[in-house]
Amino acid sequence: MNLRFPAISTPDETARIAAAARQNRLTKPTGALGRLEELSIWLAGVQGRCPPTPPQRVRVVIFAGDHGVAAAGVSAYPAEVTAQMVANFVGGGAAVNVLAGRLRAGVRVADMSVATQLPGLELPPEVTKWQVRKGSGRIDVEDALTRLEAEQAIEAGRQLADDEVDAGADLLVPGDMGIGNTTAAAVLIGILTGSDAHTVTGRGTGIDDATLDRKRVIVGTAMARAVSEIGGPAGIGDPVALLSTSAGADIAAMAGFLAQAAVRRTPVMLDGVVSGAAALVAERLAPGAKAWWAAGHRSVEPAHTLALESLGLVPLVDLGLRLGEGTGALLAVPFLVAAADTLAGMATFDEANVSDRT
Amino acid sequence: MNLRFPAISTPDETARIAAAARQNRLTKPTGALGRLEELSIWLAGVQGRCPPTPPQRVRVVIFAGDHGVAAAGVSAYPAEVTAQMVANFVGGGAAVNVLAGRLRAGVRVADMSVATQLPGLELPPEVTKWQVRKGSGRIDVEDALTRLEAEQAIEAGRQLADDEVDAGADLLVPGDMGIGNTTAAAVLIGILTGSDAHTVTGRGTGIDDATLDRKRVIVGTAMARAVSEIGGPAGIGDPVALLSTSAGADIAAMAGFLAQAAVRRTPVMLDGVVSGAAALVAERLAPGAKAWWAAGHRSVEPAHTLALESLGLVPLVDLGLRLGEGTGALLAVPFLVAAADTLAGMATFDEANVSDRT
Repeated sequence: MNLRFPAISTPDETARIAAAARQNRLTKPTGALGRLEELSIWLAGVQGRCPPTPPQRVRVVIFAGDHGVAAAGVSAYPAEVTAQMVANFVGGGAAVNVLAGRLRAGVRVADMSVATQLPGLELPPEVTKWQVRKGSGRIDVEDALTRLEAEQAIEAGRQLADDEVDAGADLLVPGDMGIGNTTAAAVLIGILTGSDAHTVTGRGTGIDDATLDRKRVIVGTAMARAVSEIGGPAGIGDPVALLSTSAGADIAAMAGFLAQAAVRRTPVMLDGVVSGAAALVAERLAPGAKAWWAAGHRSVEPAHTLALESLGLVPLVDLGLRLGEGTGALLAVPFLVAAADTLAGMATFDEANVSDRT
Repeated sequence: MNLRFPAISTPDETARIAAAARQNRLTKPTGALGRLEELSIWLAGVQGRCPPTPPQRVRVVIFAGDHGVAAAGVSAYPAEVTAQMVANFVGGGAAVNVLAGRLRAGVRVADMSVATQLPGLELPPEVTKWQVRKGSGRIDVEDALTRLEAEQAIEAGRQLADDEVDAGADLLVPGDMGIGNTTAAAVLIGILTGSDAHTVTGRGTGIDDATLDRKRVIVGTAMARAVSEIGGPAGIGDPVALLSTSAGADIAAMAGFLAQAAVRRTPVMLDGVVSGAAALVAERLAPGAKAWWAAGHRSVEPAHTLALESLGLVPLVDLGLRLGEGTGALLAVPFLVAAADTLAGMATFDEANVSDRT
């Protein structure tokens, strides 16, 4: 397996300059559309044209996996919910399906490491064929994955990105499902941003105070174990080792997916804390990849804000969501559409005979 | 003219309770959709049904007017831009037209008090027939309107709301256009929230530091003049007097429009600082009306945040916009759609055989 990612190219600077110049000729005070203007410039850059077009084929890929650490009692929900929700995604009943339906976005589910087999439920092979293992290791006491499994998961994520781009996707959205996955995300973000366990640990699905205290201890233990395993902070330079000790096949695959999207010059709308953790690792797998990503929303998970700040990305939506699945990212897509529409569709001062500033 | 508004009824509590109960049965952790859940409950209440439906007929009504205070040099743009932008709205070239087009929302323009007649440009009578006067008075030295004009403007706003509701509108969006209108809005908000001129004055269309200093002085002078005219702070209880001294026919009409929307039990998505000022006054014209309004966005104008806090409304979008026209409100409409869609379309725990919290 060759896990070396090629050098990431930068978005098209000529298109960005043209977009910025056009913004200044539109019939509005300069800057009056605020962050929509920045977003239109970003979209022009990643599409390589000005004006950019609204995304035509938005695709959510949900990376599902169980986490052994759930056995430590860090979630409000039983681990079988991961498999049940995968079935719900396939059946179209989850929030991500509803939001995607309105946007005519597609939803694909990849079972990377779901542990439970539901009786009487046969999932389609296009969902299950990605599975690297049944449940990732309990990261407070053991590695999440072997190095080979981590590489397999990254490779699966790359393949999923390639599949989607080859099929015409022009905006990718990473989604997540997995009881225990905010624990792994907190560990990764804690290590990569140099934050302590207390700061990075959040309530996930909505745990009570006692469970939060327990989760903080588990996150701290897992962080210490990982740093020791990878040979101290110097070892953080090896992102595959970090995924192996602390992630899970779902998050490792998402990291490969995000890095490969950038290789393929395809924009990504990031979601919440799990995609924030995967993005931090992906930027280390493929430096420069973050130029191809926008931050869809700010989750209430404290680690998410730390990850976004570390990446230098400012979220578009801030509505107190904490669901994952790609839902926060999908809520930001209409802003991208609005940014493209206004840049392309508004009249210029000249066209409309409107006077510019005095 | 009978300007007495009838008592405002409250949104449907039964529908709100049903919506809140349904949120707790959907396949997601309780509260995980954050403010979308609150929004779905609000929409159920104002529509009087659970689940609510996404708005089917969204209508923007832009209240256009000039402000004599522009002659004091408080804007970066010449006053003729008001008339030019009215023509741009009619021609479909402004940001509000583009955003409305994507949402299939209608845009209507009411010339309440535009001062300039553009040579060779004939505006349709449905735009011009609302005009109360050509330009409102220069509020740092004189009243904006006579009391009769203020009443006429409020009545025009009521009529516009009635027209739209009678034609089937199920979401109203107030838009504004008028060089100098953020000066009037700052004065109104300063008086009604007890804030000083320095705090409430913002950069409007993007004025430089010297102009901002001048605008602050003008706002302070206008606030002092208004409070003196209406007989001190006790006089604030007369909202028509306040509109007469400090608003303009555009803002007075918008206040009537917002109050009448509540009379007609029709939800409103508020826009920026001008609609914030109109809303503060409308809540005094028709106490309780604010239950029928949601705050679309937070403008960068400092007075807007003060107005929203005073009304107890929390904005949905915060993207640094400062354009007006209804643009910030329209950007929030997809959140309303998402709130309705998820409440109606997601599977419940029972339907999807997903385990609830342990």
